[in-house]
Amino acid sequence: MKKYQTLKGFRDFLPKNARNRQYVIGIIRKVFESYGYDPIETPALEYAEVLQGKSGEETDKLLYTFQDMGGRKLGLRYDQTVPTARFISEYKNELAFPFKRYQIQLAWRQEKPQKGRYREFLQVDGDLIGLKGALSDAEIIALIYDIYQKLGLKNIVIKINDRQVLSTLIKSAGVSEKLNADVIRIIDKLGKIGKSGISKELNKVGLTKQKVKKVLAFLEKAKPSDNLEKVFGYLKKMQIPETAYKFEPSLARGLDYYTGTIFEVSVPEFKAGSVLGGGRYDKLIGQFTKGDIPAVGFGLGFDRTFEAMEQFNLLPKQKTSAIALVTIFSPEHLEKSIEITKLLRKGGINTELYSDENSNLAKQLKYADKKGVLWVIIIGPDEILKNSVVIKNLKTKKQETIPENSLLSRIK
Amino acid sequence: MKKYQTLKGFRDFLPKNARNRQYVIGIIRKVFESYGYDPIETPALEYAEVLQGKSGEETDKLLYTFQDMGGRKLGLRYDQTVPTARFISEYKNELAFPFKRYQIQLAWRQEKPQKGRYREFLQVDGDLIGLKGALSDAEIIALIYDIYQKLGLKNIVIKINDRQVLSTLIKSAGVSEKLNADVIRIIDKLGKIGKSGISKELNKVGLTKQKVKKVLAFLEKAKPSDNLEKVFGYLKKMQIPETAYKFEPSLARGLDYYTGTIFEVSVPEFKAGSVLGGGRYDKLIGQFTKGDIPAVGFGLGFDRTFEAMEQFNLLPKQKTSAIALVTIFSPEHLEKSIEITKLLRKGGINTELYSDENSNLAKQLKYADKKGVLWVIIIGPDEILKNSVVIKNLKTKKQETIPENSLLSRIK
Repeated sequence: MKKYQTLKGFRDFLPKNARNRQYVIGIIRKVFESYGYDPIETPALEYAEVLQGKSGEETDKLLYTFQDMGGRKLGLRYDQTVPTARFISEYKNELAFPFKRYQIQLAWRQEKPQKGRYREFLQVDGDLIGLKGALSDAEIIALIYDIYQKLGLKNIVIKINDRQVLSTLIKSAGVSEKLNADVIRIIDKLGKIGKSGISKELNKVGLTKQKVKKVLAFLEKAKPSDNLEKVFGYLKKMQIPETAYKFEPSLARGLDYYTGTIFEVSVPEFKAGSVLGGGRYDKLIGQFTKGDIPAVGFGLGFDRTFEAMEQFNLLPKQKTSAIALVTIFSPEHLEKSIEITKLLRKGGINTELYSDENSNLAKQLKYADKKGVLWVIIIGPDEILKNSVVIKNLKTKKQETIPENSLLSRIK
Repeated sequence: MKKYQTLKGFRDFLPKNARNRQYVIGIIRKVFESYGYDPIETPALEYAEVLQGKSGEETDKLLYTFQDMGGRKLGLRYDQTVPTARFISEYKNELAFPFKRYQIQLAWRQEKPQKGRYREFLQVDGDLIGLKGALSDAEIIALIYDIYQKLGLKNIVIKINDRQVLSTLIKSAGVSEKLNADVIRIIDKLGKIGKSGISKELNKVGLTKQKVKKVLAFLEKAKPSDNLEKVFGYLKKMQIPETAYKFEPSLARGLDYYTGTIFEVSVPEFKAGSVLGGGRYDKLIGQFTKGDIPAVGFGLGFDRTFEAMEQFNLLPKQKTSAIALVTIFSPEHLEKSIEITKLLRKGGINTELYSDENSNLAKQLKYADKKGVLWVIIIGPDEILKNSVVIKNLKTKKQETIPENSLLSRIK
């Protein structure tokens, strides 16, 4: 017998994890909708040319592309920003702008699989499309703040910068154009490797000592841009606590398409890295449609956010949907078990009826335990005579006989 | 500017449809969980050999397969039954059996795109794995009945048959083995083309007149198998109304892997075809793991079910998540608008704050109308002075000024 397996970098989700993923998605959806953000969906497959050449060469290498039977060159969704840009150009006239949308779908990248990095992963994106201005930037940040509050990760820190601050830095330090990208990539590591670390790296790529000094001095004294001052003003008006965000002049965010405000969320004590990143990208959608359409948005790293919630014990412990299992005493008593099952379901209790009338009770109890059900209900001939039921709590192992008509309130 | 487009057979979902899809999924999930069924997820990509050769030659032709950078041969999920069989073999020891799982994920097939048939579509599967016996068949059918009750499609008809009934037919009519498949395929059309229709087709594939007569006589007088008698008995005990299901000896279901009870759901007055199909398949999982693992399950056609709900007006009419839009009278009055937005959100009303403080009211109202918001809230200098707000109902076009502290109850 051939042993089949899952591809490296791909995951199966067993009931407990699949349930908890749904739980987290449910909370995020609710916050999006409380802000008036609507869901959209785009296909997993697009013409490859839609996806290629939009987010840089590195990206193109990681795309899954192939030909279908009809000889079309296709690509699997790499992120949700590029398909959304295509979507906007296609339905421009039907949509109301500013278009506030969220999208929660899978994406695929041929990355080297490693701890915490997968080839198939869930993306959670929120974008506000069609408006410039600091108010929309602030709204997106407030929305992000609310999402993490509702997820229970209350101490997040949102680092905020403006691409313009970085341009000023580059200019004022006199960095030559061909070193721009290197310098930005290096100063982005300030939080990780400190001043001495970035000094060394800047030196290594060819920056003179004097220029390195200028860069460091700039980072120390940098002030928010006018745009960021406005964003901070709005965040204050929105009563986002000032401990929740900070100006971080070294924050760069890798992607080429950002044009203004950029931001990143980290969770203190969670070491795997930032859990969300985003910013303003006023030029990307213009690649798909006539005239620039400004936009600001974010991608929330679902796996990291989920792992952070796991670390801080914020996920439900219940292993299964079923709260109660109704056992079958014997084939002759099946009808009563069906009746009790219906009663519980009607009362809003997720209830499983054991599905084999010929299994003995021990087997049914073992099953309930392995599955992770909280209550087991037993109704035998004695109970039927007395209109009672036996309930067993599998956590406390306590068992008691109670009147049938108090069952629902007892389990609720 | 190149005009990009969606691939044929693939769809984008705009807010209203994406919301309604979530609405339908939400109901289905809830019913599954009320029966103690748990979600699982498997990857979109599998080793191609996992998918190939499991559901027949026709299926293999429709698979999307390709090589990744590492030269592995991959395939996109074609259905959820085969990946689940692989899943069961992989986690057999961790799972509690009977394993009751549901799975709601996309699948891809290179079909000829046509009305109602897509190359990417959502599958909704429910399966009960690890038990033989009529009680589990009946439970699955009761679950299906409940799903459609909760979706509002109350008059469904569940046609039920047993593969064994068909074997008896074949035998008793003396059909030669090489005609089995043809004969079964043809009698499956009884509902569509009637007796005279199938007579003609049976004749055409080479059945003698006498044998055709025997087939028709059998269909007329056929009785449920012992297994089906038991299933019907359990359904009665479960109080599924007898109008909701019927024995249909001509029902065949195409897939090779069914071994016992089979069933199909149709919605009267909905002409696009059956909305769900399923049955018992006791041999499939055995292809992935040692020893047979019996199973019974179904695939609900999400698109058809959704279309039927559309036809009978069972989908929400609301176009957007936002119930209310809070406008911004002028930049100086922004703070009050933020305050009112927070108040409404806290009260559970999905509320959008207009995200540009420099737009005039006319523009904001036009936006609210196009987006499909129900209420617009206006707070200008007069209102602020008097602690009041103006509310406009965009359905009735009525506008009134009310005290700020009655806003929430007014809109709820």
